[in-house]
Amino acid sequence: MALIVCKFGGTSVATPDRIRAAAARIAAIHAEGHAIAVVISAMGHTTDELLGLAAAVAPASANRCRRELDLILATGEQLSAGLLALAIAEAGVPAVAFTGPQAEIMTDRSHNNARIRDVRARRVRRALATGHVPVVAGFQGLSSSRDITTLGRGGSDTTAVALAVALGADRCDIYTDVDGIYTADPRLVPGARRHPRLHHREALMLAHAGAAVLHPRAAALAAIHELPLRILSSPAFGPESGTLVEGAVPVEGPHLLGVAAAADTTRLIVELPAHGRAPTAAVLHALGRAGIPVESLDDRSIESGVRRIAVALRAEHAPMAERVLREALRDETRVRIEAARTKVTVVGTGLASYGAALASALQRLARDGIEPDDLNVSELGVTMYLAPEHAEHAVRTLHDALFAAGEIDRAQRRAAGDPGAAARIDARGRRPA
Amino acid sequence: MALIVCKFGGTSVATPDRIRAAAARIAAIHAEGHAIAVVISAMGHTTDELLGLAAAVAPASANRCRRELDLILATGEQLSAGLLALAIAEAGVPAVAFTGPQAEIMTDRSHNNARIRDVRARRVRRALATGHVPVVAGFQGLSSSRDITTLGRGGSDTTAVALAVALGADRCDIYTDVDGIYTADPRLVPGARRHPRLHHREALMLAHAGAAVLHPRAAALAAIHELPLRILSSPAFGPESGTLVEGAVPVEGPHLLGVAAAADTTRLIVELPAHGRAPTAAVLHALGRAGIPVESLDDRSIESGVRRIAVALRAEHAPMAERVLREALRDETRVRIEAARTKVTVVGTGLASYGAALASALQRLARDGIEPDDLNVSELGVTMYLAPEHAEHAVRTLHDALFAAGEIDRAQRRAAGDPGAAARIDARGRRPA
Repeated sequence: MALIVCKFGGTSVATPDRIRAAAARIAAIHAEGHAIAVVISAMGHTTDELLGLAAAVAPASANRCRRELDLILATGEQLSAGLLALAIAEAGVPAVAFTGPQAEIMTDRSHNNARIRDVRARRVRRALATGHVPVVAGFQGLSSSRDITTLGRGGSDTTAVALAVALGADRCDIYTDVDGIYTADPRLVPGARRHPRLHHREALMLAHAGAAVLHPRAAALAAIHELPLRILSSPAFGPESGTLVEGAVPVEGPHLLGVAAAADTTRLIVELPAHGRAPTAAVLHALGRAGIPVESLDDRSIESGVRRIAVALRAEHAPMAERVLREALRDETRVRIEAARTKVTVVGTGLASYGAALASALQRLARDGIEPDDLNVSELGVTMYLAPEHAEHAVRTLHDALFAAGEIDRAQRRAAGDPGAAARIDARGRRPA
Repeated sequence: MALIVCKFGGTSVATPDRIRAAAARIAAIHAEGHAIAVVISAMGHTTDELLGLAAAVAPASANRCRRELDLILATGEQLSAGLLALAIAEAGVPAVAFTGPQAEIMTDRSHNNARIRDVRARRVRRALATGHVPVVAGFQGLSSSRDITTLGRGGSDTTAVALAVALGADRCDIYTDVDGIYTADPRLVPGARRHPRLHHREALMLAHAGAAVLHPRAAALAAIHELPLRILSSPAFGPESGTLVEGAVPVEGPHLLGVAAAADTTRLIVELPAHGRAPTAAVLHALGRAGIPVESLDDRSIESGVRRIAVALRAEHAPMAERVLREALRDETRVRIEAARTKVTVVGTGLASYGAALASALQRLARDGIEPDDLNVSELGVTMYLAPEHAEHAVRTLHDALFAAGEIDRAQRRAAGDPGAAARIDARGRRPA
């Protein structure tokens, strides 16, 4: 008998029928003799609808009054937690719903983007001890000033993993609308293949690249605590084969994991005299103080005496980041927002071995008029920034070139015994005859 | 400078436009130098929609799991509190939203129908002290077991009055979709007239009769504490003339207040041997233990050796009440649910003086084939139970007969000096020439 934390995403509970399907799945796991705690997202697009409502009522305040916005957003998960608990009870298993504050998901005071500081979960433990299924509203917590906070992007996944760690759960199962982690988004790339198994570090790299099924915050938390994760498709969406993520240490040798795109990235370009004192530190410090998460930062000299710092962050944070940086940096600094960019990443170790295949893909993209703004290739992966309208084509082209016709799998299996084999794959992904 | 608690009902905040109109009204009161705390209902028909959603997900559990249902229902007011706070801030006045638990509206543990035990409101006081407008989610509180409760019908009005009492407010303003308390529902009876002023006990009698603008729980609480109330139309619905309710002691002498209908009443008929030991007490005790509110109870012998106890309660409580009474009473007792009835009440003291006018109204109803099931006339008013489809016609007929052509007003004014004058009004509501 295991203790399992199950997390259901928004699409998994978007309608009464799907809520009942999730409850039936939970009742089935319960019938197998396992103890289950559930973490739940808001139904469907509720969070976006609530944001839209707040903007319709008070366009300026909706951005400024972050404490009140959290009060509004938190209703989404509170509602779905209550509904799912009712559905589980209806399926014959005693269930009890908790808000994030009731579950003592304690956070810092960064409204809209809070970090979990502690998970006490005393009432959740009591519910489990008395044979109930606790259903916890994800994405929300309680700050030291007793205010309701929300966790920002990936919040419900993070709640689930943090709760699983706090409860000492055997596993955290993430139910979503895709049946696992793929080499690319299967809705975008028909030839994408599911990873039946990944190591934590691999899953984390894919999550960072924007493989949307698992949020990097949750993946990182699971990796640190070596908590086994399963990514599964929701009962309403078909059979669950899934991806099991466990084991902290990735396999050695060349290992291609996938191609992913992360939309809605914007870059701020800061140009300043090269003689500045630790400008990168000043940038990170200023953004950190304002609670703006940075996706990546690139600092280089672009001409004699001029440094360019490119900061990639979510588009929604760009205007505030620009204001913060203008205030924090000196007058002689220019700060500008670049157009929105989509980051496309090829995730995997030992990529240098696939240089020829990558070169072919880049040539094909160039032929189609697609040139990445910034391209970085290293032993840890390939990252490029593209105009959003070119991202899908780039993902397909890269996936075709690198994962063509199943050859790469065989090559990778072979590579375990023969590290050089993968290097002999030609530009079309086929091994020489 | 006064401290005013303003309560806005569901129709007053049903759309973003109306929320902004409410915020503009609050900002205007604030600009006059008053301190304001706001209590808010859920937007429009949110509560009914949430109940419908719960029933769609889990029809049986939605009735049984009352704690989870409260978690679901409480999202409605939490959302509108957050939105209104944003709108007030947008109007330039600092505002802060609180859930019922954050405002420390402490209740008993009767989920779905909790009673307020205490209002601590420390954060509300702090907000007022720092020049903020606190916006409190009505209809909800926190039980001794730290669970979210809801207060049942009239909950938001009750929150507003209880908060006003706790804060020592000068007045509680109830904004609704009617601009005051009328002699009958003005949507039903075109000739209905607004009371510019009422005493607490009069308002309470009207509220008990089903004059929907003010809930009896709130009216009673205001009466006990002699808290002045104003019933006003919401800014979105037109000019505010309103009704001011103050003064605990009603004027003496004959005083007609209004005619009102309370739909959705069901009566349970309990028939049992006359030699039973205090069956009325047993009935009240059993229903009280089950948390079922009783509207009225009538106990009489109907034939030799048989007593009939008629219990009027809200239709939604009837099936559970029937079960509870069958279990609590002995086998020789018959319990049955009568068809749904609407209670029509003529509210006022000294009604015996209007006997002739009342008789005429009853004759007219009989001519139209309308016979009340039960009719009670006393010095405190007239109560009758009718088939729901006859209620509107009965309200109009009674109002016409009793409040005809403005004569009654003059008669009442005269009655202050000449208690006999009102008695001389004839059956058509006109004084003899």
